[in-house]
Amino acid sequence: MKVGIVGAGGVGLYYGAMLQRGGHDVRFLLRRDYDAIMTSGLTVRSHLGDFHLDHVQGYRTAAEIGPVDLALVAIKTFDNDKLVDLVKPLMTDKSVVLTLQNGLGSEEILVQAFGEQRVMGGVAMIGSTRGVSGTVDHKALGSIRIGEFSGGLSPRAGNLSALFNNAGVTCEAIADLRRVRWEKLIWNVPFSGLCTLLNAAPGSYLTKPEMNSLVRALMADVIAGANAQGLSEPIPDTCIEENIQITLASLTEYKPSMMIDRLEGRRLELDAIYRIPLEHAARKGVRMIHVGMLHALLAVKENVNKH
Amino acid sequence: MKVGIVGAGGVGLYYGAMLQRGGHDVRFLLRRDYDAIMTSGLTVRSHLGDFHLDHVQGYRTAAEIGPVDLALVAIKTFDNDKLVDLVKPLMTDKSVVLTLQNGLGSEEILVQAFGEQRVMGGVAMIGSTRGVSGTVDHKALGSIRIGEFSGGLSPRAGNLSALFNNAGVTCEAIADLRRVRWEKLIWNVPFSGLCTLLNAAPGSYLTKPEMNSLVRALMADVIAGANAQGLSEPIPDTCIEENIQITLASLTEYKPSMMIDRLEGRRLELDAIYRIPLEHAARKGVRMIHVGMLHALLAVKENVNKH
Repeated sequence: MKVGIVGAGGVGLYYGAMLQRGGHDVRFLLRRDYDAIMTSGLTVRSHLGDFHLDHVQGYRTAAEIGPVDLALVAIKTFDNDKLVDLVKPLMTDKSVVLTLQNGLGSEEILVQAFGEQRVMGGVAMIGSTRGVSGTVDHKALGSIRIGEFSGGLSPRAGNLSALFNNAGVTCEAIADLRRVRWEKLIWNVPFSGLCTLLNAAPGSYLTKPEMNSLVRALMADVIAGANAQGLSEPIPDTCIEENIQITLASLTEYKPSMMIDRLEGRRLELDAIYRIPLEHAARKGVRMIHVGMLHALLAVKENVNKH
Repeated sequence: MKVGIVGAGGVGLYYGAMLQRGGHDVRFLLRRDYDAIMTSGLTVRSHLGDFHLDHVQGYRTAAEIGPVDLALVAIKTFDNDKLVDLVKPLMTDKSVVLTLQNGLGSEEILVQAFGEQRVMGGVAMIGSTRGVSGTVDHKALGSIRIGEFSGGLSPRAGNLSALFNNAGVTCEAIADLRRVRWEKLIWNVPFSGLCTLLNAAPGSYLTKPEMNSLVRALMADVIAGANAQGLSEPIPDTCIEENIQITLASLTEYKPSMMIDRLEGRRLELDAIYRIPLEHAARKGVRMIHVGMLHALLAVKENVNKH
């Protein structure tokens, strides 16, 4: 299959490299790493096994990549004003675009431009960052769940899932993409924002009673917002305790991507993770009070001062 | 009148100096500034007029000060575990202790130790900080409102008010001290915390719509908490707009004392301004949700990292 990777950060480079290693014709849109990767190839340092790709098809523009079967999108959502322009040259009537971007809102932009029948979305559970130039560091997890923007379990979701699994990426086809996106927000909304605001990993505050309560209140907000969206099945409140326990067990030192964005001087994905979910909830009459307050603080913190 | 000043920061030094200039026998409990003040006196740089006191009665311990008619307390509330020990040597059966400390909770500690009949409280509207050693910088306002812990307009509140006014300090005797304390919290709760959390003066965020809404939500929380306390007269919601307008008009660059405490590496007055008001509200069935969240963030920020 001919695959175009749009967004060659930690996520795009890793999944692109896995697909190429699995025998697919993968073309990467590269910016910062172009010279390094074209000269020396791409090194994947992965907790599932390191490997190196000697030859990588890298391009400086989407037009040079041209039409593909699958456009895999992993750009930061704060660059979504460029999303359609970056994807358009890759699309034919038969192409599918699969966005693995964070939060909510990216599929809607793609649907607007390419129509519902060409758009799929997915949620990546992965800790992967760009390392030194030409290197990607895959430190944790790695699975994805993919589905149709329009909902339902489609044959092509099953086929694409099989393709990923055959390439060594654990992938599940799911029927309710929106539910899976909201489920991920249950973790992302509290921890992305609090870690960024406090410049501290979860373990440094989650054991403090007031903050533990606050994290739970933020999760409860998200669940209320999610369950107002008419999901195939409501998200149970037990998700709160599960997310807390997972975090205490294995994510105390984990730095959410938003915290890394902040530390490395990038913008924050506030729209995808806060503003748009807040709007979706409000449209259904749910006020996510704690989430709104966290969003306001992050938004002003981003503008007022950076430290 | 023989006056003992406990807490020789910006507030204690200023009011003590004014009372001494007004002819009273004022004795200061000094720590950091002891040498400078005993050698060269105390310089007051005030927007109401500079002056210098050549001779100041400074002491290193409360025991050396001994009994006074009026003990004026202006220590930071995070040192309230030392409050009784610092005041006790100054008290006879006829002494009055007047606390001008921030927030809630100090009168209760004093009442526990010295009895209701010896305790008064006051709210200072003043921008005054310790300058270089032996100097106090009084930059804004300066008035105080004082009343009985037990409520009601007492003759001695009137007398003490007259004493302050005669010494050049605008002072009003008030019947409902609790109401005045809560009124001040309407400003202090949002701005002390947000300025400290964001490391930014009010003007840098108050004009942003999300933050303006958040400030109003915090103020509404405080008013709800206040009005559940059975005040002599409820605090009207119009207070919100008034506080916003005053801030926009004259306090855009103002740094709340909590922000200065943070910048200068001191602890924060979180108990007096957040924890105790939250407890008072909760006891009356009012959940100040936004205030609780701000308190949690400030508490963890204070412990997790300092920047």
